[in-house]
Amino acid sequence: MKIVKTVSAIREEVRKIKAEGRSIGLVPTMGFLHEGHLSLIEAARAKHDVVMVSIFVNPLQFGPNEDFERYPRDLDRDERLARNGGVDILFCPGVEEMYPGETAMTIHVTKGIDVLCGASRPGHFDGVATVVMKLFQLTAPDEAFFGQKDAQQVAVIMNMVETFNVPVEIISCPTVREEDGLAKSSRNVYLTEEERQEAPFLYQALQKTAERAQAGERSREQLLQFLTGQLEGGSGAIDYVDVLTYPALEQQEKLAGRIIFAVAYHYTHARLIDNIIIEIEGEEA
Amino acid sequence: MKIVKTVSAIREEVRKIKAEGRSIGLVPTMGFLHEGHLSLIEAARAKHDVVMVSIFVNPLQFGPNEDFERYPRDLDRDERLARNGGVDILFCPGVEEMYPGETAMTIHVTKGIDVLCGASRPGHFDGVATVVMKLFQLTAPDEAFFGQKDAQQVAVIMNMVETFNVPVEIISCPTVREEDGLAKSSRNVYLTEEERQEAPFLYQALQKTAERAQAGERSREQLLQFLTGQLEGGSGAIDYVDVLTYPALEQQEKLAGRIIFAVAYHYTHARLIDNIIIEIEGEEA
Repeated sequence: MKIVKTVSAIREEVRKIKAEGRSIGLVPTMGFLHEGHLSLIEAARAKHDVVMVSIFVNPLQFGPNEDFERYPRDLDRDERLARNGGVDILFCPGVEEMYPGETAMTIHVTKGIDVLCGASRPGHFDGVATVVMKLFQLTAPDEAFFGQKDAQQVAVIMNMVETFNVPVEIISCPTVREEDGLAKSSRNVYLTEEERQEAPFLYQALQKTAERAQAGERSREQLLQFLTGQLEGGSGAIDYVDVLTYPALEQQEKLAGRIIFAVAYHYTHARLIDNIIIEIEGEEA
Repeated sequence: MKIVKTVSAIREEVRKIKAEGRSIGLVPTMGFLHEGHLSLIEAARAKHDVVMVSIFVNPLQFGPNEDFERYPRDLDRDERLARNGGVDILFCPGVEEMYPGETAMTIHVTKGIDVLCGASRPGHFDGVATVVMKLFQLTAPDEAFFGQKDAQQVAVIMNMVETFNVPVEIISCPTVREEDGLAKSSRNVYLTEEERQEAPFLYQALQKTAERAQAGERSREQLLQFLTGQLEGGSGAIDYVDVLTYPALEQQEKLAGRIIFAVAYHYTHARLIDNIIIEIEGEEA
């Protein structure tokens, strides 16, 4: 596995790969790799000649009161996991390498960001879109692999690729979970023991709500109320719960089509997100 | 010469060219080609295996009270000129092809746009950056050729390429002029006969001002005043005159380094721009 830290070096690697006509699968991450990331690497491995993983904790997508500084980092461990996962190139540039000067422009997302994490984290998806655009330009992947846990991120990046005609396919992979159902996340390490015990109730609440919908309940209002009820009594605080069309992320009073049930929940030192996406039969509004 | 009108067809052309290892030089235009464009085509021809010209009057870069609707168009003539100029591929998509859906995001330019055309035309460079990003993604050129007449545009696009690590070299080519010095522009056709007679005085004013600077005048204030004075008595109206560093486009009271002298001038049915860029000896501030 090659470890590449500079813009000029990754360009040179990409140039060589392209000259040989080999395909590239990219897994963009913020590091502190877990089995969710490993499943993305596996998916990329299965389809591409060259698997690249990027590790970059992107300051642009963190708000001033968010956890950029204390976001977990362990590059040695990440290197080991990536190597074992069959990664060919690990691209881990520093902040100075990615943002060397004053920012001259950003991508400003205007659609599908007034809900979920977009509403809770103003500017977050501008930062995500900007850094993913940079990573795509630098690594020129044929496909890029993202986890469905960050469902709104996937929607924004699909929009970005379409808006700017970026020649990259976006592949959304299923959320990987702990045995008790908790979605794998780099931030899980910040849960207290009690919080870790309790946290699977987020997924259980989503499951029960999705089951209600599949059993025939079509009212967004009713399902939202039910989901909220399931989360009462938890030791943390709800950031948001929502039931929306996917990937458009629009409200629909009588649900039909592809629907996301989503939650964000604040624990003492970690904000967790999770979601379930299902197909609901019926005529779309 | 191939004429390509769709996103899918241009992608297929680019795929074939890349597979053969051939280089691409792109000349992005809004059509109504003149000798300025032809000089860009010639520059691209001299360096690249394949020359592409795009023709797209981009609605996103026109303000609500600007001349999008009546911007001059003549695709038959453009095709003939491009063919005679040795263009290999003419890419001329319709608005629906370039903007098929609701805009989900734009590039928002934050630096170097509070002056010159950026100040006169709010949002203009967001539209320019967005469409040029799309064109670069679609045509994957090794180099793209722009005219220095649109000096701020060149600066913004250089910034864009740097900000998003777009793998395209930006080449700025000298402004092509009529025999009397008037900068070639698609909008010159909208000048009345009298205006056309008078218009070369814009370039003369820029020349005289640049000569003053080269003769030793270093005060931005003095040169601005002199330039403004040169334009008095014209039958139109000054939109702006300015003297700035280039390409940063910053004010510098005692001039040194690369300096742009720029003017925008309103005639009855056309707004003309022109500039001169010179190197001024001395210590930069």
